[in-house]
Amino acid sequence: MSNHSNPYQFGLDKNAANFSALSPLTFIERSASVFPNKTAVVHQNIRRTWSETYSRCRRLASALTKHGIGEGDTVAVMAPNVPEVFEAHFGVPMCGAVLNALNIRLDAEAIAFILQHGEAKVILVDREFSEVISKALKMIAHRPLVIDIDDPSYEGGELIGTMDYEAFIADGDADYQWQLPEDEWDAITLNYTSGTTGNPKGVVYHHRGAYLNAMSNIVSWNMGQHPVYLWTLPMFHCNGWCFPWSIAASAGVSVCLRQVRADAIYDAIRDEKVNHFCGAPIVLNMLNNAPEEMKAGIEHSVKVMTAGAAPPAAVIQGMEAMGFTVTHVYGLTETYGPSVVCEWHQEWNDRTDEEIARLKSRQGVRAPMLDGLMVANPDTLEPVPQDGETMGEVFMRGNLVMKGYLKNPSTTEESFSGGWFHSGDLAVWHADGYIEIKDRSKDIIISGGENISSIEVEDVLYRNGDVMEAAVVARNDEKWGEVPCAFVTLKDGAEVTEQEIIDFCRDNMANFKAPKKVVFGPLPKTSTGKIQKFVLRDKAND
Amino acid sequence: MSNHSNPYQFGLDKNAANFSALSPLTFIERSASVFPNKTAVVHQNIRRTWSETYSRCRRLASALTKHGIGEGDTVAVMAPNVPEVFEAHFGVPMCGAVLNALNIRLDAEAIAFILQHGEAKVILVDREFSEVISKALKMIAHRPLVIDIDDPSYEGGELIGTMDYEAFIADGDADYQWQLPEDEWDAITLNYTSGTTGNPKGVVYHHRGAYLNAMSNIVSWNMGQHPVYLWTLPMFHCNGWCFPWSIAASAGVSVCLRQVRADAIYDAIRDEKVNHFCGAPIVLNMLNNAPEEMKAGIEHSVKVMTAGAAPPAAVIQGMEAMGFTVTHVYGLTETYGPSVVCEWHQEWNDRTDEEIARLKSRQGVRAPMLDGLMVANPDTLEPVPQDGETMGEVFMRGNLVMKGYLKNPSTTEESFSGGWFHSGDLAVWHADGYIEIKDRSKDIIISGGENISSIEVEDVLYRNGDVMEAAVVARNDEKWGEVPCAFVTLKDGAEVTEQEIIDFCRDNMANFKAPKKVVFGPLPKTSTGKIQKFVLRDKAND
Repeated sequence: MSNHSNPYQFGLDKNAANFSALSPLTFIERSASVFPNKTAVVHQNIRRTWSETYSRCRRLASALTKHGIGEGDTVAVMAPNVPEVFEAHFGVPMCGAVLNALNIRLDAEAIAFILQHGEAKVILVDREFSEVISKALKMIAHRPLVIDIDDPSYEGGELIGTMDYEAFIADGDADYQWQLPEDEWDAITLNYTSGTTGNPKGVVYHHRGAYLNAMSNIVSWNMGQHPVYLWTLPMFHCNGWCFPWSIAASAGVSVCLRQVRADAIYDAIRDEKVNHFCGAPIVLNMLNNAPEEMKAGIEHSVKVMTAGAAPPAAVIQGMEAMGFTVTHVYGLTETYGPSVVCEWHQEWNDRTDEEIARLKSRQGVRAPMLDGLMVANPDTLEPVPQDGETMGEVFMRGNLVMKGYLKNPSTTEESFSGGWFHSGDLAVWHADGYIEIKDRSKDIIISGGENISSIEVEDVLYRNGDVMEAAVVARNDEKWGEVPCAFVTLKDGAEVTEQEIIDFCRDNMANFKAPKKVVFGPLPKTSTGKIQKFVLRDKAND
Repeated sequence: MSNHSNPYQFGLDKNAANFSALSPLTFIERSASVFPNKTAVVHQNIRRTWSETYSRCRRLASALTKHGIGEGDTVAVMAPNVPEVFEAHFGVPMCGAVLNALNIRLDAEAIAFILQHGEAKVILVDREFSEVISKALKMIAHRPLVIDIDDPSYEGGELIGTMDYEAFIADGDADYQWQLPEDEWDAITLNYTSGTTGNPKGVVYHHRGAYLNAMSNIVSWNMGQHPVYLWTLPMFHCNGWCFPWSIAASAGVSVCLRQVRADAIYDAIRDEKVNHFCGAPIVLNMLNNAPEEMKAGIEHSVKVMTAGAAPPAAVIQGMEAMGFTVTHVYGLTETYGPSVVCEWHQEWNDRTDEEIARLKSRQGVRAPMLDGLMVANPDTLEPVPQDGETMGEVFMRGNLVMKGYLKNPSTTEESFSGGWFHSGDLAVWHADGYIEIKDRSKDIIISGGENISSIEVEDVLYRNGDVMEAAVVARNDEKWGEVPCAFVTLKDGAEVTEQEIIDFCRDNMANFKAPKKVVFGPLPKTSTGKIQKFVLRDKAND
């Protein structure tokens, strides 16, 4: 081995000229300077340029500073996808503070827990949520500064704050000289997991990760310059998968959307020439099943990114038949949203529609900026064989994994044990290196000692022409331990019996995997369109 | 101000699960795993996949390790754009070593200086350069291990090494377990400046910067997945502007090219469906002036990135008329190649051809991952007004600026003084934030106390239909101090006198800027197509 001293280690240190913290805040500064007059944000009658949006962000940062907010302080926001939330993704970290975008479907108790745990010093509140926030504020010890978002496009609710957002930022300086974080590892946002069991956990993101995932989105989705992006995905969900920062980096347009409705989505795509949007499969399903006249007049190509559950084949086929290109991604709050992508191979285009949908329903491979992905034994961390059959837990590592859980070092340590992030999702690993999620650890059904993937049963149910939505959970059974129980919403006008559904499943999969019981009716969902299986599990066992 | 302790600073440290060094080595690992069977490298009859190329890189790293090469050791390469140089961009840093790609136009003295200064332990030598390397090796104290690159597509030269590259890597392990650098700040490559005055300086790049500029290329050029890239730009020049790593990140194709000739370039574009290549304006000029029959049969769109000098309007117009889209970028060896890009505004497409060419000839704004760019007074670092007239020096800062000069702390410190990298280029700053280089500090002509930009005079000369190439330098003058002297190569068959050229310039610019003397003949050039003005300056004053 060489034993000389390493000449590359001397006189080549970091300094202000050759090193800078990675932060997505640099993106908005650049777009405002290079494309000052291009449209940045559209909401109802509002159209703001990058220059205007950047000024508003700096005003927000400045105003926060004037109210004593600085490094390590938490600023919460409770609002749908309106411009103020987009601005908060820049203005809040510009003053060194940490943005905590709240899930707007949460109840007062959950909100109170989060505000208390996250120590929010300020909260921005859209009128639509004045009641739940008022209630939550009564439950906590220290009342934060409350600023109203007074969006004229919403009627109802009340102004409950000290002042409204426009007045607040009017007092800020549009030339506020913000600083990059001292360290790119500094926190930028705080996102609470939905916490279906136990208290929600506060996932902390840092500037470096936000920067890298914003770029990873652009590269893996091939977004190009100036994408027109529709805000179907909530910005409170993993910071909209980091897309506020991706859009700033690519000087694109953020088309805001208060409510995820098919007519509003199709109108925005048609009128604003939207060419990119994200949504859970359930949103795509809703778009598929919308009346044909709603879909008319859209000629340009549209890219859709979907995650949150494997998109059923029928959903993918429906979207692609409309000329929408679906990219399937996967991730968790702990991985900045999508960190796994179903990379497409051009030669797959020659396969049958069914085969294409099957390939596309796999979660895929690591995103360009994720450093490690494996399916492994959760106890030994030994990778499973890439045989498409052996189930294991999904593990990630590297720069797209969170900083950790706020004020929860033991859970943080546990989730990182062995040097990999434990996702809690169960998957198989295919020979080509693509992973396919079979279930959440807690959603798997163990019947007579055999694993049944609830997702696999749901996929069969979705192939039935009468089924609109389906979810399968475990129901306790004396003989088998657990058996699958299906909850199904039928399409308008469909008439089908429980036995017909069970028979359909038996015709399309191993008999022991077919549901033993089928319950018809609407499905309980989270704000991000995920079906709440813990509610269904309770129902199944009632 | 808030005076609580910052909860985001506790229990949220870096660990193997959530932090990884940024390194472009992760790109090739990913492409080999996700797209193992896609073509990576094409050279003559050779077509290798990403899987094969990755194996060869690992073999190279392993073989180097077996010969005692490791962290901080330098491995030099002297070869044109053949697959071995591409592989060295990965295989060398995989074993912790630093790649030093040598400029193939250098003479034995310069090579000897570089090998000695860079302490190369190994050198890979293409047969074409066996003579100059043999000569250089005789001048230095410690002979490195010499490995021959025995490319069958070149006839001549000799094998001068211990063994040939194929035998060398055959001894390496295709499953070699390489490691990421301990620190992303660790050196990855060493690139000597052309050193037109004094000894060449060794510019050191690190893994972090190489990773970021590779991504910056993809984003700013909107390269997409699987670009087909032609190697017109030498890989020894700022590591081919970091494109070996960009191509790996986007799982593209590297089409190798031994010699930059118009016929070979057009053939490759036609046969391999090349859609991206880079070249100095002089290369584009050569392509423009090629016979029409050479250009036939190219139907697909091609993107060209140009830098090294402002592309004359005629060159841009000629390329675009062929359907090639030209992106103008700017940078230096010290900034990983292109770190400034002439970002295009869609609305500029409505301007006149002349106006478009003028806008495109400006160097532009900072690339997505450069953190700071300014034109400022070199003494005070005070930014000049953005008036398009006041000249100042170009300064850069941030992650696309080199680690420093090897074994040269005083020059490193000087070049970074005041926390900005001093480029030595003179520019004006336009009202829209775009910079326009007027000259190298040393190329500016000072006549009667007035600055004359040599580039401005050259631009006028290029507008003359008889002129093929032009360069303008200062010639000492008793009365004026300096006056412009033009060196001009005429197009085939053109007949024009010195006085006609001078008159043409006087008709198209302020009289005092017009050359006082015109010399006809071929121009001396560096290997990257830059005209060697220091040679012309000597001639002008002979």
